[in-house]
Amino acid sequence: MGYQSNIFASNLRSKKTKNIGVLVPRLNSNFQSSVIAGMEKVANNAGFNLIISQSLENFEKECSNVESLFKSRVDGLLVSMAKNSNGTKHFDRFFNKGIPVIFFDRVADCDICTGVVIDNFNASYQATNHLLEQGCKRIVHVLGNTEINIYAERLKGYKNALTEHNISYDQTLIIIMDLGEDAGEFIVDQILGMETLPDGLFVSNDACAASCIKHLKLHNIRVPEDIAVVGFNNDPISRLVEPNITTVNYPGYEMGEIAMRNLINHLEGKDENTLSTTKKITLRSELLVRASSLKNN
Amino acid sequence: MGYQSNIFASNLRSKKTKNIGVLVPRLNSNFQSSVIAGMEKVANNAGFNLIISQSLENFEKECSNVESLFKSRVDGLLVSMAKNSNGTKHFDRFFNKGIPVIFFDRVADCDICTGVVIDNFNASYQATNHLLEQGCKRIVHVLGNTEINIYAERLKGYKNALTEHNISYDQTLIIIMDLGEDAGEFIVDQILGMETLPDGLFVSNDACAASCIKHLKLHNIRVPEDIAVVGFNNDPISRLVEPNITTVNYPGYEMGEIAMRNLINHLEGKDENTLSTTKKITLRSELLVRASSLKNN
Repeated sequence: MGYQSNIFASNLRSKKTKNIGVLVPRLNSNFQSSVIAGMEKVANNAGFNLIISQSLENFEKECSNVESLFKSRVDGLLVSMAKNSNGTKHFDRFFNKGIPVIFFDRVADCDICTGVVIDNFNASYQATNHLLEQGCKRIVHVLGNTEINIYAERLKGYKNALTEHNISYDQTLIIIMDLGEDAGEFIVDQILGMETLPDGLFVSNDACAASCIKHLKLHNIRVPEDIAVVGFNNDPISRLVEPNITTVNYPGYEMGEIAMRNLINHLEGKDENTLSTTKKITLRSELLVRASSLKNN
Repeated sequence: MGYQSNIFASNLRSKKTKNIGVLVPRLNSNFQSSVIAGMEKVANNAGFNLIISQSLENFEKECSNVESLFKSRVDGLLVSMAKNSNGTKHFDRFFNKGIPVIFFDRVADCDICTGVVIDNFNASYQATNHLLEQGCKRIVHVLGNTEINIYAERLKGYKNALTEHNISYDQTLIIIMDLGEDAGEFIVDQILGMETLPDGLFVSNDACAASCIKHLKLHNIRVPEDIAVVGFNNDPISRLVEPNITTVNYPGYEMGEIAMRNLINHLEGKDENTLSTTKKITLRSELLVRASSLKNN
């Protein structure tokens, strides 16, 4: 009665807490909450707890959260980095102690790290290529800070598709900004201010693409006839607005499962060498073509 | 070098881990991820970590997660219950040890518990009343399992508004089901099978309401002219589909902040009596009227 099985003390002895730290930019994002749901499922089944925190896209907060998770003695760490995150020095205490760190989605460029990602270059290449095949010649690309790997890769994929179609890259068609659900008004204003209206729009998330479609319609610009639109993520919203949004399926739940599975296998000594020799795990993604981009129907 | 401030051992001595357990039905829900983001912000600022787990709407999993969080020696627990959750006996070890448990949103009906909720009765009453004032006489209400407090209260609010308008309650207009983003097709099929078409539709979440609007349109039923629609939650999707969806603003982020603030105040001895004497904290919610329900424009 009142006695509790002494898991805490035995954890102390073995230096294992059975807690895994998860650090994301924002918890209230459709993509990140899918990732975390996938992580929790795998961790829970394996008897691990998840300790979560958010950097709120702030590098200083990321540093202090990493420190706090280290002090909590998590057995391992899963991280998606803040947009202004700078290097990996703030993870040195983990690296020095041999506590495994896996990055996912927004990964660090570092020799000793493992990252779980989708092929952002190829996903973006396919999306742009699809718009070009629909006859688009002036494609606006809206994306986040290109210091983040995922956006840098997507910009490269966009450029590569243009090159293959002998269309020269025009920097005035690139809009770099925070991709909120309210951004559509600003983006459409930018588009309306262009000397020649674009005929394609490739936006790096679906909520923002939906917001663009809403504001294009308010200005009597038809989607896809006047401007074909492609989003990113395959969020539920892409299937609920009209026209349905062509998008890149981004398997967040599966990304969470795979990152956690790799971490736990390592902790349980199943794949000890695998993690240290794996630089990158790339997940399959695919372009889902829907009405918002089909000019040729 | 290699030495770590011994927070873990000192936590053991003081029997505080600075970890707070959070248990929700599903992590990948727009509402729950907003709640958790609010909780994390408050906890992080106060130096507490969040250990999260999901019941996946399964009572057995809820029980085993509660047990696991107890063994992890969390300092307190925040819970939103699974849909088939049964009583509060599985929290007895927390109650017996005096470890504070606060329920939020889906709360337990229990004498010694504290719950943070919105006034679901009143929110539903207002939504239904609004549809009645728009001239609706046959209002379909789609909601989840009425053994969950939030849906039971909403059904009462719906009935109450009808009574005040001298409209008798018709059980054939009530659809009880899981409110997924794909549910619209099923709901619209049900509606099309009714002897008389309804003129109003009140759905207990926005993604599902958006899905209904999509399928109503596919059957050439106009929203709001033929059927006026009201959703619930004020999810981003309600502002992005056409017509924009009238909905109840459900302050998830604030609910998370307030639940966590109350728990931490209690743990820090600031409001020790407050929590034990507080049965319920009810947050303000409000009806946001948009185009999907305005027949009289």
